[in-house]
Amino acid sequence: MEEARQVDATRRGRFITLEGPDGAGKTTQAHLVAAILRAHGKEVVTTREPGGTAVGNRLRQVLLDPETPVQPTTETLLMFAARAEHVARVIEPALAAGRWVVCDRFTDSTFAYQGDGRGIAKGDIEALAAFTHAGCWPDLTLCLDVPPATSAERMHERTLDGFEREDGDFHRRVREGFAKRAAKEARIVVIDGSRALDMVSRAVRNTVEAFIRRSEATR
Amino acid sequence: MEEARQVDATRRGRFITLEGPDGAGKTTQAHLVAAILRAHGKEVVTTREPGGTAVGNRLRQVLLDPETPVQPTTETLLMFAARAEHVARVIEPALAAGRWVVCDRFTDSTFAYQGDGRGIAKGDIEALAAFTHAGCWPDLTLCLDVPPATSAERMHERTLDGFEREDGDFHRRVREGFAKRAAKEARIVVIDGSRALDMVSRAVRNTVEAFIRRSEATR
Repeated sequence: MEEARQVDATRRGRFITLEGPDGAGKTTQAHLVAAILRAHGKEVVTTREPGGTAVGNRLRQVLLDPETPVQPTTETLLMFAARAEHVARVIEPALAAGRWVVCDRFTDSTFAYQGDGRGIAKGDIEALAAFTHAGCWPDLTLCLDVPPATSAERMHERTLDGFEREDGDFHRRVREGFAKRAAKEARIVVIDGSRALDMVSRAVRNTVEAFIRRSEATR
Repeated sequence: MEEARQVDATRRGRFITLEGPDGAGKTTQAHLVAAILRAHGKEVVTTREPGGTAVGNRLRQVLLDPETPVQPTTETLLMFAARAEHVARVIEPALAAGRWVVCDRFTDSTFAYQGDGRGIAKGDIEALAAFTHAGCWPDLTLCLDVPPATSAERMHERTLDGFEREDGDFHRRVREGFAKRAAKEARIVVIDGSRALDMVSRAVRNTVEAFIRRSEATR
């Protein structure tokens, strides 16, 4: 018993993020990822950005309110402010306690939306990421890729926030931004989210189960 | 007429900030500075930080609410987010239109409170300032210096925000932080705010009138 508890306490959890445009199916797949992890005996914390804390949710309201558009610089700083709180109060404590964290959006979204979408320099985003969460990066990122037309069609029924109201060219740049991140970071697995749901879910399941096997092999 | 209007349009205003601990008399002296400038024929915009815009005021509520304490990293990012909005929407447009801006607190407060007070690295604050308002720094800063005991006594009657509730050692570090900024930046004039109000006001008036003369001489 004593030994088992010690092993548990020293076992850091894993940090998995879902990325991609709105309407790509991130929320549905985040539920699936959490279910797969739980079936493998992991304790799971699911969360999302911007938000995930009391302060983060207040900032989310400011960020997504189409009535209060902010400057790209302001938007970037607010995203990182919400993230700093989220990492310090939710993500890091969970990982340290051995829990697996499944998070809907993280810094890759800032590179795609504020970087490629709004034109904020990538070097500035890298510096802000280092200031905000140096040492806390996802271990695995599932990036669901869908063409802007598919995304727009799926969003048709929703009340749109400030980002969702942007034009087609913005969403095309964001999609390219995610592709650039995926080309740069080995942890990012791109999954074609434009297919039928069961196909997408199967690809997500395969990726997550392979990741669990790898992470158990390296313990 | 034509020529006079052209001169007006090309004349950039000046940016004056007031700094120092709470209870130092910044608000009273900001009113005096604005009155002196108006008496010299300047169009004046008075504003304050954190705040100064619709979004900034929402962030001010988050920042100063003692019920929602945030991490020092979050606090610093939020201060700069509010500032980015403030500079882009209020300060820069006013200066560009030839108005003089009088602002209660700016980035020197971030160096003193988040830097010396909370322990955020000065290099990180410098990088955030460059990201947020490169090219928009105050032309003159009046830093009102009072010992923490005087400040505490003057604050006695107010409902205290999160910063004001910090302990004496925090306020001692903040005061030292302002002194370090003043030693580093020639634009910062330290004024002993612990004296009687008419003495402080006279020092402020002398400094502002000398600044107006200098700024008119260099046109």
